[in-house]
Amino acid sequence: MGSFKGHALPGSFFLIAGLWWAGKYSLWYATLRNKSLGSTSTRLASRSTQRRLEVIEGSVTLFFSVVGMLAEQFVADGPRLHLYDYSEHHWDRLHNWQHSTMYLFFGLAGAMSLIVHTTDAAPLALDRLMLAIAFFIEGFLFLYHLHGRAMLDVHVHQLLLFCVFGEAMVSFLEVFHRGNMLLELLRASLTILQGSWFWQIGFVLYSPSGAEWDQKDHNNMMFITMCYCWHLVFSLLIVSVLVVRSRLKRTPPMEMGLLKPRERQQESEDEIL
Amino acid sequence: MGSFKGHALPGSFFLIAGLWWAGKYSLWYATLRNKSLGSTSTRLASRSTQRRLEVIEGSVTLFFSVVGMLAEQFVADGPRLHLYDYSEHHWDRLHNWQHSTMYLFFGLAGAMSLIVHTTDAAPLALDRLMLAIAFFIEGFLFLYHLHGRAMLDVHVHQLLLFCVFGEAMVSFLEVFHRGNMLLELLRASLTILQGSWFWQIGFVLYSPSGAEWDQKDHNNMMFITMCYCWHLVFSLLIVSVLVVRSRLKRTPPMEMGLLKPRERQQESEDEIL
Amino acid sequence: MGSFKGHALPGSFFLIAGLWWAGKYSLWYATLRNKSLGSTSTRLASRSTQRRLEVIEGSVTLFFSVVGMLAEQFVADGPRLHLYDYSEHHWDRLHNWQHSTMYLFFGLAGAMSLIVHTTDAAPLALDRLMLAIAFFIEGFLFLYHLHGRAMLDVHVHQLLLFCVFGEAMVSFLEVFHRGNMLLELLRASLTILQGSWFWQIGFVLYSPSGAEWDQKDHNNMMFITMCYCWHLVFSLLIVSVLVVRSRLKRTPPMEMGLLKPRERQQESEDEIL
Amino acid sequence: MGSFKGHALPGSFFLIAGLWWAGKYSLWYATLRNKSLGSTSTRLASRSTQRRLEVIEGSVTLFFSVVGMLAEQFVADGPRLHLYDYSEHHWDRLHNWQHSTMYLFFGLAGAMSLIVHTTDAAPLALDRLMLAIAFFIEGFLFLYHLHGRAMLDVHVHQLLLFCVFGEAMVSFLEVFHRGNMLLELLRASLTILQGSWFWQIGFVLYSPSGAEWDQKDHNNMMFITMCYCWHLVFSLLIVSVLVVRSRLKRTPPMEMGLLKPRERQQESEDEIL
Repeated sequence: MGSFKGHALPGSFFLIAGLWWAGKYSLWYATLRNKSLGSTSTRLASRSTQRRLEVIEGSVTLFFSVVGMLAEQFVADGPRLHLYDYSEHHWDRLHNWQHSTMYLFFGLAGAMSLIVHTTDAAPLALDRLMLAIAFFIEGFLFLYHLHGRAMLDVHVHQLLLFCVFGEAMVSFLEVFHRGNMLLELLRASLTILQGSWFWQIGFVLYSPSGAEWDQKDHNNMMFITMCYCWHLVFSLLIVSVLVVRSRLKRTPPMEMGLLKPRERQQESEDEIL
Repeated sequence: MGSFKGHALPGSFFLIAGLWWAGKYSLWYATLRNKSLGSTSTRLASRSTQRRLEVIEGSVTLFFSVVGMLAEQFVADGPRLHLYDYSEHHWDRLHNWQHSTMYLFFGLAGAMSLIVHTTDAAPLALDRLMLAIAFFIEGFLFLYHLHGRAMLDVHVHQLLLFCVFGEAMVSFLEVFHRGNMLLELLRASLTILQGSWFWQIGFVLYSPSGAEWDQKDHNNMMFITMCYCWHLVFSLLIVSVLVVRSRLKRTPPMEMGLLKPRERQQESEDEIL
Repeated sequence: MGSFKGHALPGSFFLIAGLWWAGKYSLWYATLRNKSLGSTSTRLASRSTQRRLEVIEGSVTLFFSVVGMLAEQFVADGPRLHLYDYSEHHWDRLHNWQHSTMYLFFGLAGAMSLIVHTTDAAPLALDRLMLAIAFFIEGFLFLYHLHGRAMLDVHVHQLLLFCVFGEAMVSFLEVFHRGNMLLELLRASLTILQGSWFWQIGFVLYSPSGAEWDQKDHNNMMFITMCYCWHLVFSLLIVSVLVVRSRLKRTPPMEMGLLKPRERQQESEDEIL
Repeated sequence: MGSFKGHALPGSFFLIAGLWWAGKYSLWYATLRNKSLGSTSTRLASRSTQRRLEVIEGSVTLFFSVVGMLAEQFVADGPRLHLYDYSEHHWDRLHNWQHSTMYLFFGLAGAMSLIVHTTDAAPLALDRLMLAIAFFIEGFLFLYHLHGRAMLDVHVHQLLLFCVFGEAMVSFLEVFHRGNMLLELLRASLTILQGSWFWQIGFVLYSPSGAEWDQKDHNNMMFITMCYCWHLVFSLLIVSVLVVRSRLKRTPPMEMGLLKPRERQQESEDEIL
């Protein structure tokens, strides 16, 4: 039903996604501040660069989602597209099917992002709406996933739900506040948190060193709750470092003092796009 | 208390409503993009067409709600407006009365839509507010409807609540963000989901083939949860196909590249109306 | 602990408050539509009329809240400001104290409304914020009020919480969307609902005719839930009638067709004030 | 696990923080009203004063958070950075670690406020976002803190959660509505409430007079709930007095009548900043 690898793999994916987003948005934000200095040709160049980044992101998401779906179905103990075992009258490996379903929604989000950024057939904000739906469905399936497990097992997965539903909410808010730097960075932080927490779950429930945690000790639960907060600190620090570095590197500090803070903040990615 | 037909009927209504909305909004959205090309007379024509569509929609909603209320009261085993059985001292067929109440609120929403679009006696956004209230009341009545049923029965109806309350929330958001394409399409998708899920409930609880589901098997619950996600994929795909088709059909692709994505997105139905 | 009169009294207050609000806002809305027709002197006159109405509303609220507090303390079985019974070591008539606390917050809301509309010492939106807090506290105290009562008793009071917290939410939204006609009317409807539901609670739990309801019958709960929806229909209809009447009476119908619906809707009370 | 001093100390901190905020924002608000009267040099002076206040606030927050973390670790019974007791195989003084974690997040919020107001490396609203996260984490850790305690103990801490999560929500709203006077004052009130409630918890659970409360008496719970409302009244009154005093003192009353209420309200701290 679960394994160390089964948690480390999605964990790595979310870690990479979170880092990618943190890097992308802090880069765009730094570019925005230099806008007033650049010539028109520079700006057009950065616009097409951004669109290209979005297309790459959408393609990679779509590709890995399809790979994930195929892997869940056809690796060693996958259901190979059989949904119901008629000989023994029960559903066939529902966990693999549930994971496939999660991948499917992230694949849809990737495909939607591709459509939105390569054609004009749909409004721009659809990519965030599909992302919000994908995160919501991930949390929704986890929510009904936990019946009858041990207390600590349930607890570490419930903590996961905080960041998954948090990401869904932030993405949904982005539909209305597109290009809000803070929401984008919050989404990146929560995604890094989700990634590192998947690794933590792997270490707690299926420790590679063989050590077992007492699943009924209340102190373990209190430690794990606190540990979750530390993961959040860690992800916030990573995102902060990325943002500050990309900003300091690129802006001549004397000039910045002349701009009013408010003005800069209200500019959005879309204005460049 | 329930039957296959009793779920297939509202299911069909919601399916039709969802498809209608998806078609209507994708058509309007396509029209908006062509606005810059059309002459003033064309635009005036499209305005009055839209108003006429709204009036038709309101009338049909009102008509079927009244029919629904009458049917619940006067078909074979209806209470025929008797609320209390004095001879045996108990309430008389409360389920029929509850369904009548739901129809009543949708009827009010239809009547309000009629008033809003034919007279000037009320602000435009009232139609969405009444729709939000109608969906909220539907969910509210279902919420207190489930006492003492079997586990699977409760679960499939709880899943229904996700899309019903989702529709209420989206309609309420539309009061403040009227004409937001994404909210309108999300509402259409959730309505299609509600419709197809009613059919699914019918097949699970009152299967016409006579097969019975084990109501206490946890695997059945996990499958049903996942199945709900597939219904959502299905409804999202239908809406997407409708949108993309209506947009590609109508817009000369070369011209589109010249418009900034942001501008087009902010235009709303109301600007044409 | 409760009585028919103890529910009819606050019910009547909320009924009157809801009707007052519905009347006030529909009148203002009608006045707004005639603004373009009136001369400057008419408009100045309507401005000072409105301010006077607000002052009267604030004074009346403050007066009845103080009367309510005094009545809870000093009527026949009130605690007369004694909080703790030292002879028997228990708290003294906590229910009266709780009701006094509720009145206190509504009194604060009235006082704040007076301050806001007679002086310039505070921002305008503070009256809605205090109203939101007053409704929230009412719901909050009811929430921890229900421990250990019979099932039906708990249920009718829980239903009350829906409209109380709904009013708190709508008032809080008005802090940001002040002068939004729909929120104002929704608040009026929910207040009428609260008022008529208090009367309903009185009839169910302390029926003056002496008939007793079976507090454990699930059918009674289902009926009560549905009955709550009918009260909502009733309050929505009253508000609608008031709005439509005040609008039709005052506007020459031919002229209205020339105004775009959107423009009128965005105008707010504050623009006149 | 707890002591009177352990509740009085954070209580005092939050009381001071709340009073500071109430004072700061009412002062700024009064300054804003005088803006039209002042010369450009006065306004530049007030701008740099504000920035200096923000820097002081950030430094003080950071300093006391670090002191708090060190105190939790190294005072008499602190864990001195030992997390796991290997000899007896259990976690070492988790409560101290949890408190350190809370201080850590407030320290981060202070540091972020410093960075935001001294450099241009980050968008202005980040200070509110970090504050929202700090309050959320405080509530989050308390939420999983209460397992297995007595009824009254759980209840007083649950009441605390209302204002903690309230502060998190208000701070998050400020990310989007920065400079909204009402949200700032609401945050100040809730912080004062939190501070005085910590003192109340100390008196209830670890009364210095030695009197013990019956932890299972339902009347005690009802009294405590009501008492919480009185603390809120008290904090609202303090904030109101501060606001009204700073406004009346500074504005020549005749002039105010000439300004439209709406205009003044929409001005924000950021416009001066």
